[in-house]
Amino acid sequence: MNYGLTVIEPVSRRSSLVMSLKNVLVSTRTKYQRVQIVELEEFGTALILDDYIQSTEADEYIYHESLIHPALITHPRPEKVLIVGGGEGASLREVLKHSTVSKAVMVDIDGELVELAKRYLGVMHRGSFDDPRSKVIIMDGLKYIEEATETYDVVILDLTDPFGSDIARALYSSEFYMKLKNRLTHDSVIVSQCGSSFFYPNTYRYIVNNIMKAFKVVREYYVWIPSFGYACNFIIASDRYDPATLSAHDVDELLRRRGVTTRYYSGKVHEALMKLPVIYNSFSMNIDRVY
Amino acid sequence: MNYGLTVIEPVSRRSSLVMSLKNVLVSTRTKYQRVQIVELEEFGTALILDDYIQSTEADEYIYHESLIHPALITHPRPEKVLIVGGGEGASLREVLKHSTVSKAVMVDIDGELVELAKRYLGVMHRGSFDDPRSKVIIMDGLKYIEEATETYDVVILDLTDPFGSDIARALYSSEFYMKLKNRLTHDSVIVSQCGSSFFYPNTYRYIVNNIMKAFKVVREYYVWIPSFGYACNFIIASDRYDPATLSAHDVDELLRRRGVTTRYYSGKVHEALMKLPVIYNSFSMNIDRVY
Amino acid sequence: MNYGLTVIEPVSRRSSLVMSLKNVLVSTRTKYQRVQIVELEEFGTALILDDYIQSTEADEYIYHESLIHPALITHPRPEKVLIVGGGEGASLREVLKHSTVSKAVMVDIDGELVELAKRYLGVMHRGSFDDPRSKVIIMDGLKYIEEATETYDVVILDLTDPFGSDIARALYSSEFYMKLKNRLTHDSVIVSQCGSSFFYPNTYRYIVNNIMKAFKVVREYYVWIPSFGYACNFIIASDRYDPATLSAHDVDELLRRRGVTTRYYSGKVHEALMKLPVIYNSFSMNIDRVY
Amino acid sequence: MNYGLTVIEPVSRRSSLVMSLKNVLVSTRTKYQRVQIVELEEFGTALILDDYIQSTEADEYIYHESLIHPALITHPRPEKVLIVGGGEGASLREVLKHSTVSKAVMVDIDGELVELAKRYLGVMHRGSFDDPRSKVIIMDGLKYIEEATETYDVVILDLTDPFGSDIARALYSSEFYMKLKNRLTHDSVIVSQCGSSFFYPNTYRYIVNNIMKAFKVVREYYVWIPSFGYACNFIIASDRYDPATLSAHDVDELLRRRGVTTRYYSGKVHEALMKLPVIYNSFSMNIDRVY
Repeated sequence: MNYGLTVIEPVSRRSSLVMSLKNVLVSTRTKYQRVQIVELEEFGTALILDDYIQSTEADEYIYHESLIHPALITHPRPEKVLIVGGGEGASLREVLKHSTVSKAVMVDIDGELVELAKRYLGVMHRGSFDDPRSKVIIMDGLKYIEEATETYDVVILDLTDPFGSDIARALYSSEFYMKLKNRLTHDSVIVSQCGSSFFYPNTYRYIVNNIMKAFKVVREYYVWIPSFGYACNFIIASDRYDPATLSAHDVDELLRRRGVTTRYYSGKVHEALMKLPVIYNSFSMNIDRVY
Repeated sequence: MNYGLTVIEPVSRRSSLVMSLKNVLVSTRTKYQRVQIVELEEFGTALILDDYIQSTEADEYIYHESLIHPALITHPRPEKVLIVGGGEGASLREVLKHSTVSKAVMVDIDGELVELAKRYLGVMHRGSFDDPRSKVIIMDGLKYIEEATETYDVVILDLTDPFGSDIARALYSSEFYMKLKNRLTHDSVIVSQCGSSFFYPNTYRYIVNNIMKAFKVVREYYVWIPSFGYACNFIIASDRYDPATLSAHDVDELLRRRGVTTRYYSGKVHEALMKLPVIYNSFSMNIDRVY
Repeated sequence: MNYGLTVIEPVSRRSSLVMSLKNVLVSTRTKYQRVQIVELEEFGTALILDDYIQSTEADEYIYHESLIHPALITHPRPEKVLIVGGGEGASLREVLKHSTVSKAVMVDIDGELVELAKRYLGVMHRGSFDDPRSKVIIMDGLKYIEEATETYDVVILDLTDPFGSDIARALYSSEFYMKLKNRLTHDSVIVSQCGSSFFYPNTYRYIVNNIMKAFKVVREYYVWIPSFGYACNFIIASDRYDPATLSAHDVDELLRRRGVTTRYYSGKVHEALMKLPVIYNSFSMNIDRVY
Repeated sequence: MNYGLTVIEPVSRRSSLVMSLKNVLVSTRTKYQRVQIVELEEFGTALILDDYIQSTEADEYIYHESLIHPALITHPRPEKVLIVGGGEGASLREVLKHSTVSKAVMVDIDGELVELAKRYLGVMHRGSFDDPRSKVIIMDGLKYIEEATETYDVVILDLTDPFGSDIARALYSSEFYMKLKNRLTHDSVIVSQCGSSFFYPNTYRYIVNNIMKAFKVVREYYVWIPSFGYACNFIIASDRYDPATLSAHDVDELLRRRGVTTRYYSGKVHEALMKLPVIYNSFSMNIDRVY
C-alpha cells in the first residue's frame, strides 16, 4: 500500500484503486456533487466527482478520443453535435476537431463544476469553451432533452457512471432513450459511455437492452482507462449508420479530410474496437444489482 | 476503501489495487518466493506470488488465451512447445488444445509452487499436467535454455513481472534472448508477457529493444487483465512468421482445424490485438527505472 | 509496507486501520452478524464481527482485564456475576479468576458465535466455558434482563460497539439501564465498554448521560487497545461503591486474597485509570451523530 | 468508508492508519526530509515528515504536554531548557509556559522545516518563536551537543521516530547520551519521546538500556496519541530527581506557581502516567529489528 497522500477510488463493488496524490487544487461541494481537482503523481491533474475519477491528464485523451471519434466518424457529415455532461470540456475539445461541426452544444447540470473546469482544467478543455461554435447550457440533461426543439446529428452522453452517483441514473433509462429520439433525425448517431461491463455486468446489460429497444443499429466497444481501474464500455447507436462497416482506410481518410489529429484513435483502432468482444465477470453478476 | 479481509496488490510504482478476500487456502514461502492461494470475492480462486496476482479464476482465461494462441496460430504447425514459467499449468492447458502439439515442456524453477498448483489450482490447470504430451522440468529457465539440446517450434515466456520479484529479471535480458535462439529453429515463434508498457514504460522499452536485437519480426499487443489492475503487454517474435499477416478468417480456420475452443480469443480478437497501438504513461517515465 | 493479505478495520468515521493478515480460520455469517476468525501477523488469532476487531491474542488481555477487574474489585464480595455479550469467553475467564465468584452467567445472542469461539478461540476462553460455575444462555441480552428473576452482584456489559453494528444499540439506551436495575441489588456494580470518547464523543456522552440517570456513582476510564486503533472507554456505575476510593494497596490485597493473577491490571493500574481524564476530539464532534 | 483523499501512515511494521484528507497546504522535500502540511478531516492541520504524522491540531496538545511538563515539573527550578528537534514549535510553546524558564534553545537540523512551521503552523507554535526567551539554532542536534559549551537544566529530545526516518537514529544511541551529559549539570533532567514500546519492543528496549547506562534515575511512561495510531512512550532520566516521587498535589502546586495552564496534563495525570506499566507486543518482537 502506498504511504503518504493518496486518492482511493472505487473500481467495483469489491475493489478499489489507491493512487499517490501530490496536491489538492480544489475540494468543494457544489449543489450536485463533491468536486475535487487534484494532482496525482502518476496521472497529473485529475477531476474527481463523488470519489470517482472522471479525467486525468495522463489518460483522458484515451477516454475522450474513444468516446467522440467513433461516433462522429460514423456520421458522414456531423454538423450539429450535442454533448450531455462532459463538464471538463474535453469532449467538446474532441468534437470541435471535426471541421464539419458548425455547432457544439454542451448541456451540464452543474454550473459550478463548469466554472471550476474553465479555471483549473485548461490542460483538458484547451480553450474549447471559447470556440465560437461552442455553446454551454447549464441545465438538467433530461430536462433539456424534453424541452429543447433542436435536433442533432450526433449526441454524446458523457455522463458519470451509472453505478456511481445517483445524478446520472435517469439518463441510462429506457424512457430517456425514447425521449432522446425527439432530438434526433432519422440518420443521427448517439454514443454513451456505459461504465464497466466486467465489474457491473447486470447494470451494463440493462443499459444495452434499453438502447436496443430504441435503435436499429447498436455497437459495443471498450477501452482500458488506467485511472478508472477498468476498461470503459461505450455503446454507439443509430437507426441508419453502422460504425462496424467502416474500414481503417475509410476512417483515416475521413479524419484527414476533417482535419482531425489524435494521439490514440485512428483507423486501425476503430477497426480493433469493433472487433473485441465485450467481457463479463461472472463473480460480479452475483454482486451487481440494478436499481 | 473496502473494509474487512482484503488483498492489496501493487499495480505500478504509485498505485495499488485493493480486492475483497474471502479465504486463504495456502500461504507459504517456497525456496524462491512467497506463494499464496486465496479466494477473492470478485475473482474466485487466485494465485499470488510475492504480492503480485498471477492468475484468478475470473480472468485468467483472458490472460492465458492471449498469451498462448496468437503465438501458436502464427506458427503453421507447432509440434514441440516450451513454456518457461507458468507454474499454475494454465499455459500448458491452452498449449495442449492445439492438436498439432506432440510435446509440451514446462520448465519452472519452483517445484513447490508446481506441487501446490497441482493440488489447489485444478480450476486452472484442469488436468493438463497429466496429459501424456506434457513434461514438467523443475529447473531455472535460464539454465535450461543454456543446457538443453532440444529445439522448439514455439517458446512461451510466462514469467513473473520484470519489475516485480527479482526471480525473472535475467529472463528479459538481451543475453537471454540470444541464448534462447539455440533452442529455436529458423522458423520458430516466441512470445513473452512483458508487464505494463503504460506504468513501466522504460522497463517495457528495454524489453522490446532486447527482443528486437534478436529477431527479425516483432509484434506488440496488449490486453486488459482486470485483476492485474492494468492491460498486460505481450510481444511475439520470429525470424520468419508475422502474426499481423493473419486475417480473422485464417485464424478461425486454424483454430477449427486444430480443435481449439476458447472463451475470449478468436480471429476477430487476433486482428484487433494486432491493430491497437501500445500506450505509454509519460508521468510513469519519470518514476520507472530500469535495473 | 502493507501489500498482500490484510484486514482493514474502521477506527472512526474517517479513519481505518490496515493490519497484515496471515490466515483465515473462519469466515461465515451467523443469523446475527458476520463472524471471522483470522490470524494476524502482528496480533495473532483474532475475532472480527462485522468488520470490527473484538479481540486479538496480542492485546485482548489488556481489554478484558481492564473491563472485568476494576468492577469486580469495587464490589467487596462478588458472588453472582452476569456477562452480557462476551462471546469469545475471555470476560468469563477473567471473572472466574475471582475466588469469591460462585456463579458466572454469560448471555450472548449469537449461539453460532459461541460455538465457533469454543472451537477456535481456546487461546482466549482457556476452558472457562467448562468451569462448573459457568452458565451460558443464548438469548437476546435485553430480553434476558427483562425476563430473568435473578439478581447479580456485578453485571458486565461486554457489547459490540455502540457505533458499529446495530445489534447492541438498544443495550446502551436509558431504558436499558433502568430495566437493568431489576437485575441488581442496592449494592451491585456494573461496567460497560463504551467505544471511543475521542472518535465518537457524542455517542459516548449519550451513554454517560444515560448511565448517570440510573446510578449514583459513575466513574469513567479508558485504556489503549492497539488492535482497535483507539483507547477504549469504560464506565463503572453503582449506587453504593466507588472504585476511585480504592488505593493501589487495597486493590493488590484484594487480588491476592481472591487468587487473581493478571498480566496488565494491578493496584497501580487501578489508581492510574481512575486519574486519567476522558479525552474528546472536537473535530469528531461534527461528524459523530447519535442515532 | 475511506474513499477519496486520504493520508496513509505507517503505524508499525505491519499496520497502517488511513485518515481522510481535506487539503494539502505544503508538499515539499527539504534537504533532510519530505515535509507535508495538510488538513485532515478528523484531526485538523497536521505536519507529516517522511510519511509519519508528527503533530495534528486535534491531539498535539496531548503529545506536547506529556513530553514537556513531567520533565519540567521534575526539576525544581528549570531556567535553561534545550529542545532538540521540535520543528513545529509546540514543544517550545509548552516550555515557555513555565515562568521559571529564562532561556529556551531549540536546535533543529532542518531550517526549511522551521520556516514552513512559522508560516503554516501558527495553530501549533502560537508565536513561541517570537518570545524573547526563545532561540532557534539550525544545526545537527548531535553536532550541537558535541560543540556547545552551555549546560541546561532540562533537555527535551523531541525527535522523529527511531524506527522511521534515519535522520534521528544517532540521537538514540548510547554514545549520544554520554555526550549529552556534557550539556547537563549534576541535577539536570532529560526526557525523550521513544516511539512505541508495543509495536517496536526491541527498538524501545535498546533505547531504555542506552539511557539506563547514562543516568541513575530512569522513569518510563506512555500516552495514547490518536493520530499516531499508537500510545507514544516517553523516558525521563536524571542523576538526581525522580518524577515518581511527586504527588498530584505537588504537581498542581508547581503548575500554579509557575503559571502553567494545560488542557490534558495535571497532577492527577502525572501520578497516573508514573503508575501505568509499559506494554510490549510479543508478536512484534519477531518483526522489530534494531539497527
